[in-house]
Amino acid sequence: MSSKGFRVVKPEIRVLGIDDGAFTPRTKGFAPIVGVVFRGGYWLDGVMHAKIRIDGLDATEEIGSMIVNSPHYKQLRVIMLNGVTFAGFNVVNIKLLNAETSLPVIVVSRDRPSFAEIHAALRHLPDAEERWKAVQDAGELFEVHVKGKPVAAYMEIAGISEKDARKIVTLTSTRSNIPEPLRVAHLIASGISV
Amino acid sequence: MSSKGFRVVKPEIRVLGIDDGAFTPRTKGFAPIVGVVFRGGYWLDGVMHAKIRIDGLDATEEIGSMIVNSPHYKQLRVIMLNGVTFAGFNVVNIKLLNAETSLPVIVVSRDRPSFAEIHAALRHLPDAEERWKAVQDAGELFEVHVKGKPVAAYMEIAGISEKDARKIVTLTSTRSNIPEPLRVAHLIASGISV
Repeated sequence: MSSKGFRVVKPEIRVLGIDDGAFTPRTKGFAPIVGVVFRGGYWLDGVMHAKIRIDGLDATEEIGSMIVNSPHYKQLRVIMLNGVTFAGFNVVNIKLLNAETSLPVIVVSRDRPSFAEIHAALRHLPDAEERWKAVQDAGELFEVHVKGKPVAAYMEIAGISEKDARKIVTLTSTRSNIPEPLRVAHLIASGISV
Repeated sequence: MSSKGFRVVKPEIRVLGIDDGAFTPRTKGFAPIVGVVFRGGYWLDGVMHAKIRIDGLDATEEIGSMIVNSPHYKQLRVIMLNGVTFAGFNVVNIKLLNAETSLPVIVVSRDRPSFAEIHAALRHLPDAEERWKAVQDAGELFEVHVKGKPVAAYMEIAGISEKDARKIVTLTSTRSNIPEPLRVAHLIASGISV
């Protein structure tokens, strides 16, 4: 794993927020992935996109190559994902994504992931073990508290300390309980695909 | 023309910024149009999209119906366009767009439009008179001064007073000399289509 300590988390830290757009579940085809470059919790600096297969196995690779081939790559300091499953059950392995990009990864989920339900659903898909390993490789689940709410969200991390990840989630949650790079990635991915 | 006076321009006024994405010039086909809903100059509230024909005549109609069919329509108070020509020479007639949507329209151009060049270029296209009328219907060209720069941009308006339009352009130019709804519409439209 590629791990970087942050001596200090700058207010203008460049964060890439990633979400998927709309698609028709359980069909052959692709779903759009949108990455937004945010400067801290305030300013959008850029947008990138990719396509991944619905219920496929290419999310880690396609998102990784979208990032390292982007003109924004050198400015980025951390990747944020809206959950680990995209385009159905195309699971991102955040340990691998961290290794491929040399960037820390923070997964933020608004609801507590139900691992029992995910495990049951994966069993109906090919390569269930690889998908389940990716879910497990996301590691420990942390509760996130923002703006005094009991639990605002859940967090999983790769290549970053719990303390630094909490700082970055808090710093970027400017507009709501969700980090701004993820709130905006969701709005864009939905808005271009519905 | 549908004209609305603003008793006061609220800091959280909902502005729709519109720009086009990448396309291959002088081909048959479509270019993407992205609309972003901004709350004043700070927060992205939504994204919508449409497609218009390269060098076609459907920009006014397609952008108008994207707006009135959007769930954000009732919250919107003003439309901002990045110039009047989209997808090549598919010209938006802002008088008609104002009438169709009942919303004021502000066109912002970073560079002074060269009407002689536009007129010359239009003559090579079918329906040149309709396109040229749309360019002329944008009316008077105003210089915009933001943050002390001599001329930050140029502005054309429909359904709004010069004074109110200047207020809205200044209020929303938070991050740069360009109104934030247009800066972000440009980043998204480019980022999803390159």
